Amino acid sequence: MTKLFTSLLLLLGVILSQAQTLQSPDKNLSMNFSLTQNGVPVYELTYKNKTVIKSSTLGIETVDVPSFTEGFSLKDFKNNTFDETWQPVWGEQKNIRNNYNELAVTIQQKSVNNRFITIRFRLFNDGLGFRYEFPEQSNLTYFIIKEEKTQFALAGNHKAFWLPGDFDTQEYSTVTSKLSEVRSKMDAAVTPNASQQTFSPTGLQTPLMMKSDDGLYINIHEAALIDYSCLSLELDDDKMILNAFLTPDAVGNKGYMQASTQTPWRTIVVSDDARDILASKLILNLNEPTKYEDVSWIKPVKYVGVWWEMITGKSSWAYNDLTSVKLGEIDYSKTKASPKHAANTNHVKEYIDFASKHGFDAVLVEGWNEGWEDWFGKSKDYVFDFVTPYPDFDVKGLKEYAASKNVKMMMHHETSGSARNYERHMDNAYQFMVDNGYNSVKSGYVGDILPRGEYHYGQWMNNHYLYAITKAAEYKIMVNAHEAVRPTGLSRTYPNLIGNESARGTEYESFGGNNADHTTILPFTRLMGGPMDYTPGIFQTQIKEYNPENTSFVHTTLAKQLALYVTMYSPLQMAADLPETYNKHLDAFQFIKDVALDWDDSYILEAEPGDYITIARKAKGKNEWFVGGITDENKRMATVDFSFLPKGKTFEAIVYADAKDADYITNPQAYIIKKIKVTSKTKLKQSMATSGGFAISIK
Amino acid sequence: MTKLFTSLLLLLGVILSQAQTLQSPDKNLSMNFSLTQNGVPVYELTYKNKTVIKSSTLGIETVDVPSFTEGFSLKDFKNNTFDETWQPVWGEQKNIRNNYNELAVTIQQKSVNNRFITIRFRLFNDGLGFRYEFPEQSNLTYFIIKEEKTQFALAGNHKAFWLPGDFDTQEYSTVTSKLSEVRSKMDAAVTPNASQQTFSPTGLQTPLMMKSDDGLYINIHEAALIDYSCLSLELDDDKMILNAFLTPDAVGNKGYMQASTQTPWRTIVVSDDARDILASKLILNLNEPTKYEDVSWIKPVKYVGVWWEMITGKSSWAYNDLTSVKLGEIDYSKTKASPKHAANTNHVKEYIDFASKHGFDAVLVEGWNEGWEDWFGKSKDYVFDFVTPYPDFDVKGLKEYAASKNVKMMMHHETSGSARNYERHMDNAYQFMVDNGYNSVKSGYVGDILPRGEYHYGQWMNNHYLYAITKAAEYKIMVNAHEAVRPTGLSRTYPNLIGNESARGTEYESFGGNNADHTTILPFTRLMGGPMDYTPGIFQTQIKEYNPENTSFVHTTLAKQLALYVTMYSPLQMAADLPETYNKHLDAFQFIKDVALDWDDSYILEAEPGDYITIARKAKGKNEWFVGGITDENKRMATVDFSFLPKGKTFEAIVYADAKDADYITNPQAYIIKKIKVTSKTKLKQSMATSGGFAISIK
Repeated sequence: MTKLFTSLLLLLGVILSQAQTLQSPDKNLSMNFSLTQNGVPVYELTYKNKTVIKSSTLGIETVDVPSFTEGFSLKDFKNNTFDETWQPVWGEQKNIRNNYNELAVTIQQKSVNNRFITIRFRLFNDGLGFRYEFPEQSNLTYFIIKEEKTQFALAGNHKAFWLPGDFDTQEYSTVTSKLSEVRSKMDAAVTPNASQQTFSPTGLQTPLMMKSDDGLYINIHEAALIDYSCLSLELDDDKMILNAFLTPDAVGNKGYMQASTQTPWRTIVVSDDARDILASKLILNLNEPTKYEDVSWIKPVKYVGVWWEMITGKSSWAYNDLTSVKLGEIDYSKTKASPKHAANTNHVKEYIDFASKHGFDAVLVEGWNEGWEDWFGKSKDYVFDFVTPYPDFDVKGLKEYAASKNVKMMMHHETSGSARNYERHMDNAYQFMVDNGYNSVKSGYVGDILPRGEYHYGQWMNNHYLYAITKAAEYKIMVNAHEAVRPTGLSRTYPNLIGNESARGTEYESFGGNNADHTTILPFTRLMGGPMDYTPGIFQTQIKEYNPENTSFVHTTLAKQLALYVTMYSPLQMAADLPETYNKHLDAFQFIKDVALDWDDSYILEAEPGDYITIARKAKGKNEWFVGGITDENKRMATVDFSFLPKGKTFEAIVYADAKDADYITNPQAYIIKKIKVTSKTKLKQSMATSGGFAISIK
Repeated sequence: MTKLFTSLLLLLGVILSQAQTLQSPDKNLSMNFSLTQNGVPVYELTYKNKTVIKSSTLGIETVDVPSFTEGFSLKDFKNNTFDETWQPVWGEQKNIRNNYNELAVTIQQKSVNNRFITIRFRLFNDGLGFRYEFPEQSNLTYFIIKEEKTQFALAGNHKAFWLPGDFDTQEYSTVTSKLSEVRSKMDAAVTPNASQQTFSPTGLQTPLMMKSDDGLYINIHEAALIDYSCLSLELDDDKMILNAFLTPDAVGNKGYMQASTQTPWRTIVVSDDARDILASKLILNLNEPTKYEDVSWIKPVKYVGVWWEMITGKSSWAYNDLTSVKLGEIDYSKTKASPKHAANTNHVKEYIDFASKHGFDAVLVEGWNEGWEDWFGKSKDYVFDFVTPYPDFDVKGLKEYAASKNVKMMMHHETSGSARNYERHMDNAYQFMVDNGYNSVKSGYVGDILPRGEYHYGQWMNNHYLYAITKAAEYKIMVNAHEAVRPTGLSRTYPNLIGNESARGTEYESFGGNNADHTTILPFTRLMGGPMDYTPGIFQTQIKEYNPENTSFVHTTLAKQLALYVTMYSPLQMAADLPETYNKHLDAFQFIKDVALDWDDSYILEAEPGDYITIARKAKGKNEWFVGGITDENKRMATVDFSFLPKGKTFEAIVYADAKDADYITNPQAYIIKKIKVTSKTKLKQSMATSGGFAISIK
């Protein structure tokens, strides 16, 4: 009997060690998992029988215990199917379907006391997610990660839209090249930044967008980055393999783990239609539902702010030109305010008036608090206290004034990367916000991190960013974190994370300019993980009009600036230019006033990374639609298929478009506004200038 | 006219560049400052014409700006004399005289835009203090320290009482040797510790106590260690020069400075009478007066606690034997308590009863809060929350019980070195203390520091320790920080710092034992900077009586344990043994009950480092005196000169002494108690056993 049973088990073992195959609900995607002769876990992925990922190894190399890399045998596997529809607090669509087939493979290492881990694969119609899970067991509790050995072995020398891999910044211009050209183009791609640490001549960031010669669009990123270090990729340009490369900590380790635990999900979104990449909700679906019971205080925000005038150099954050200040020792009231200091009460009231008049939700003010004279690059620990205003900024008066105008104040917490200092002041800073009428905060981490040796994207700081978000939630505060780690869909779980920067934003239009194709790429890369506070709406494209010494110009037409409110999805949208400029273009400004921030549905009408994007969206709970179209440095004729409209009804659409002679270099501000009639059968041909665009509102 | 003026200046320059000499008020000490041919600042020090410090360089080597090491010329100098008497909140004497002659030399570097610094020397009758000051100036704001180049060039191959230099621990046994023997004895001296990082085969810690062949006692340490990294010394054993060696941070730098600023004081206490070293208040005098307006809440504390039973292995901190727990996820109420878990309500009540019965101020309880199962050595970030008790520890019930017995509870905050986690919970933790009747906290930093790469004694953590102290003061909480940086007299400024460990405490008597001469050295080394929570009073010298598996024994007689309450000055004193043991020796225990914690005056009657100490003290505001005498491994006959008593009056003294046949190895518990009459003319000869001692109370 025992013998028979053993034989059965052995037979079963043989069967179990065979490859496991998983198919997407629509059967277009197929994932295969197996173990090599040496017990190394490998997977491969195909889309409509085209290879997306060739056989690629999986595993975790460790510092202090035997590695999870080889010597595995199959312990068991479980299949599961999941299909639910959920509603985000805010988003591109009211209902999100989460539908996947799952394979959870548990593999064990006989030579390590049968220690086992589970690799969980979820295959959606739009791609694959997988992660490593470490169940607690007698010989697996704590361990330290040396490197994650996940591979993405590509099927060819794809065209890639890439940023240099960096532990501290993503504020690079995207390079579009063949993967084989990465190495030769790396040096030029690594432009200076306030804090940066590259790691390899073939290091790349995620989300990494690629297109294969046979027409597959492939996007690699991660989901649910919690208590782990951020994933980068190192390209083996001989074999065209992307190898996981985690952000190290101050002593070179890459993760401190306590079972039971798991890694973030590694995601591969894939389609033969670029529009599917933009429509994908795979990353959100791989995050957990929100942990907050009450989300009524979380609302999209349209705002203006005392900001662009500093970015251009017209105004200053600092109160004066001291080169060194010590908080608590300096008495600013005994120093003279610079005439360039913008965050003064009267000037802020002008912004409040403007915001109120035009129906904005909030006014951001930067440079309001003590410490801006020497905040950057000094490795200064106690750099801000987040509660002490400059003498010319009347917190209480502005609180009352804003309230009387039905406008919220938006707080600014620049930390200068001094994370300990921020945490020490965080409770006071958030309480100060509550006390003074601020319900959202733009936080910043410009410069090298303190504690020194840590990077922006390491486990230590990722833990900090989430700490800041969850603590903000205790105060019902929404967070827009700049220079924080790139988003990975965490806003599903923590919906008060309403924005991030984590890429080259509009500010660079004042620092020499963004490429004309920049915003045709960002939705395929940076936005895959969550919304960006891109701060569009710059109408004065010649920066020298604000600051004669600044020769930068905005590398778009004015109409394209409008289109970005639709093509760059975010629940947080700024009208970033100065009121004085908007007052000269109130007709075009009307679109920014009208455009919605939250949506019942979105329709990706046209898309090709690096070339063009056309998107239509239906405002949440309203019969209003907004369309945005953009192009790269080439003129283009877009086609807007209005079939998303209710059938059998005619609507009036206002079209904001490039004038015929518009050109992003020679004539960027030339726009036209026209009214047209549209129905669900309309297919509008709409021209765009070089780096141009158009916006349409239908009410 | 201009020419004449220039000539005058040149002449003045010649005069200024001559050496500057400073003398102590009693003229015994003489300090000489000069600049070498290369403009390197140097100093030398003599005591009664004997060389203490030979010509030694001064300077600071920097990372990012030109170093402050050479090319200096004299800019100006200022002399000053200071003499005041001040009253500490608590201390060895009611009045402390602060009397010094000061020389502030300002030197400039012509090649660095005339950048200047000031070196300030204060020469007291008992030694020298000096520091570097960096006034703010147009070309000196921020800088990073690579190394401090302060030298202490010794006049000979002194006998030294030394610990291996280490960035993380001082819990080593003191080695007594010639300086020339340091190198050969280093390996054996570096015994294992929970966290340790040595830096050199001739690295030494401060306070470093030395004795020259010609009879000078020399002690090198620092005062007012604030926002700077801790000083160690690297011995050049060819030239007998001690070179400053600062604790680095995670990236190897040694200090981040913002002018105007200064270093801590470097101190050299010197005398030809060892008693003067113990009597010195030089380090306190170099600290600033207290910053607290209200100090009424700061009081000396005599306490018992649920502690020694865990140290011996009789009991446990942990609730059970889980190997991995996650706070917030584990429900301890569903796990079984270990019978060894000592911090349970009933047992704590026994300690409260005992404390109340015998007039103790407080009861310490360790292991009361969730997380002790896996607290150590896991590099665990969220290791404790400092507010959640184990299910068997009734916080509210014990609050009420302790209050009804007129006893305070003493909190325990073990951080496991996870400093960020402690800071995140600090406000809640302190408020919890206020809410539950705790007014003092024993904090701990066992294990490697988080943020990883930082050391216990670096600037980052020194900043943290002071943050914890000042924040505690906001809640009127007294702090006793273990494994924190060694004290440097900061308790003058922050008198709620009532104790530190920062050395090998009594706990090591349960971990193999302390040397018989240990406590005859500590007052000359560790105690120079401030009081130690040494936790004496162990009557059961055989640890196996508590834990059969523990073969350690206490390396003193019982009588010596009593003497330590006088010889080891501290406003915080524990009766560390178990109530069950004290109940068997209530006659000897009476001394611990009687002994004062705060003093009008102290009299160092006899002292030789490594050999013996006899000290008498007068209780603050009372006509009570207490005497303690201890010896090393050798028997000794002490002489107690009672001339400190008021003249013309006879007092009854109770003498607690080693019995004739006492011996710290073979018969440590043999003591006698006798009453004698004494007057100010009495000179008592009192014998001590090997590693023995005696205590005397006069009421």
